Amino acid sequence: MKLSLIGIGCGNPDHLTIEAIAALNRADLILLPDKGEEKAALAHLRAKLLARHLTRTVPQRSFAMPKRRKDQGYLAGVNDWHDEIAACWLSEIAQAGHPEHVALLVWGDPSLYDSTLRIAARISPAPEIRVVPGITSLSMLTAAHRIPLNGLGDAVAILPARVLREKGWPEGIATLAVFLDDGSTLADQPEDCLIWWGAYLGMEEEALIAGRLGDLRDEIATTRAALRAQHGWIMDLYLLRRP
Amino acid sequence: MKLSLIGIGCGNPDHLTIEAIAALNRADLILLPDKGEEKAALAHLRAKLLARHLTRTVPQRSFAMPKRRKDQGYLAGVNDWHDEIAACWLSEIAQAGHPEHVALLVWGDPSLYDSTLRIAARISPAPEIRVVPGITSLSMLTAAHRIPLNGLGDAVAILPARVLREKGWPEGIATLAVFLDDGSTLADQPEDCLIWWGAYLGMEEEALIAGRLGDLRDEIATTRAALRAQHGWIMDLYLLRRP
Ligand SMILES: C[S@@+](CC[C@H](N)C(=O)[O-])C[C@H]1O[C@@H](n2cnc3c(N)ncnc32)[C@H](O)[C@@H]1O
Ligand SMILES: C[S@@+](CC[C@H](N)C(=O)[O-])C[C@H]1O[C@@H](n2cnc3c(N)ncnc32)[C@H](O)[C@@H]1O
Repeated sequence: MKLSLIGIGCGNPDHLTIEAIAALNRADLILLPDKGEEKAALAHLRAKLLARHLTRTVPQRSFAMPKRRKDQGYLAGVNDWHDEIAACWLSEIAQAGHPEHVALLVWGDPSLYDSTLRIAARISPAPEIRVVPGITSLSMLTAAHRIPLNGLGDAVAILPARVLREKGWPEGIATLAVFLDDGSTLADQPEDCLIWWGAYLGMEEEALIAGRLGDLRDEIATTRAALRAQHGWIMDLYLLRRP
Repeated sequence: MKLSLIGIGCGNPDHLTIEAIAALNRADLILLPDKGEEKAALAHLRAKLLARHLTRTVPQRSFAMPKRRKDQGYLAGVNDWHDEIAACWLSEIAQAGHPEHVALLVWGDPSLYDSTLRIAARISPAPEIRVVPGITSLSMLTAAHRIPLNGLGDAVAILPARVLREKGWPEGIATLAVFLDDGSTLADQPEDCLIWWGAYLGMEEEALIAGRLGDLRDEIATTRAALRAQHGWIMDLYLLRRP
């Protein structure tokens, strides 16, 4: 079996590469994880994207994503969850009659805070895996704000908000790109740093705020809460830079 | 004036997005910096990419990139150099009769270790700048090796080799993505870390090596030197991960 993990960018169907479009059209089966109501909007975007870019009929199967157990500690919970998802893939692939070439759509780029590769590593016998790179949400953020990611010749740290909360600002690094925040992390960050914040990047709902964190903390918190209430879900991301 | 900075990926013409192709075709002038012999291969790739994706005739102007002075310290040298490049752009734009929509092709993604945005900030009156995100060489590296960038829920630092040499491994971060090495940096890194190395990613010449650094240091150094001698230039990139 060949398994293609196809980076699809972050919501703008024009952000697919020629290679990604070709890979979609080469598949015999496209697997679509269904993450429930909260992500219905994303499933809708994905369906539009497939309708737009598929030039032949490719069978598609949606399956309900198992829920992650949160009672065993982070790593154990995630490992069990990945096992269960791999079992779901295998069951769908079997029901589809074991097609030769299976494709999975991956949000943004498959390398960045995404587990599709770790789940794929659980499939046995080992499939031939191909990764098609995609535009990351981080490139979307910097493009929307028209800024470089790094200071001139300087380092950048990419980290989940949980790591920033638990370990603090990594020493000696002036720029942070913070993923997967639940909205609780900015409260403890230094007033005088600069922030470039973006939500729903690449989508119609896109929202951007940039400036000095001390001046914007409340505005970002209020905007985030209002958008989340209005749309029922939110994905946001930000850069922080120490002066 | 509208100025589009278009991320073109790292050498594979199939890595352009639909948006990048549309932006190229919308331009009235494409500016092509000519970086001399060493980068002739890249200029050739760029020409192929334009021939393949342009569906109308767009005027193109190449100009010789000024040389960076290395006698004043890094930052001063870079700042003067950016001023000179901005002056070159303006002179080419004037000679082309001040077209409304100017495009620049940017290797990979415009946010990552690239100065096109800093040069554009020097143009006055300020143009309307648009950034079109592209596939980064880092996404190419992880896709080629079929690995996630980050450890599960973990931080990553992106840094130029010079910073790693001068400041050492950033504390508390297990994964580093090292750009812009001249081949001299791996000698001082810990034996027991893992490395995923890639050169000419996305091109015909692509070369990959992965494993324990202590076992591979010599092989990487020898391979790098041989490839550089063979092709006359090299671009490489690697991930390091502490056990
Ligand atoms: C599970 S990670 C997946 C990242 C993805 N693989 C990528 O390459 O961008 C999801 C996180 O990425 C960020 N993100 C992804 N898409 C986004 C978007 N369209 N707008 C804002 N943030 C986004 C948010 O921080 C979100 O919590
Ligand atoms: C000036 S930076 C530009 C990075 C680019 N903007 C990006 O998004 O990848 C050039 C460095 O990127 C890395 N790089 C760029 N293209 C590459 C390729 N095709 N193969 C390997 N490394 C590459 C190398 O570390 C090189 O020294």
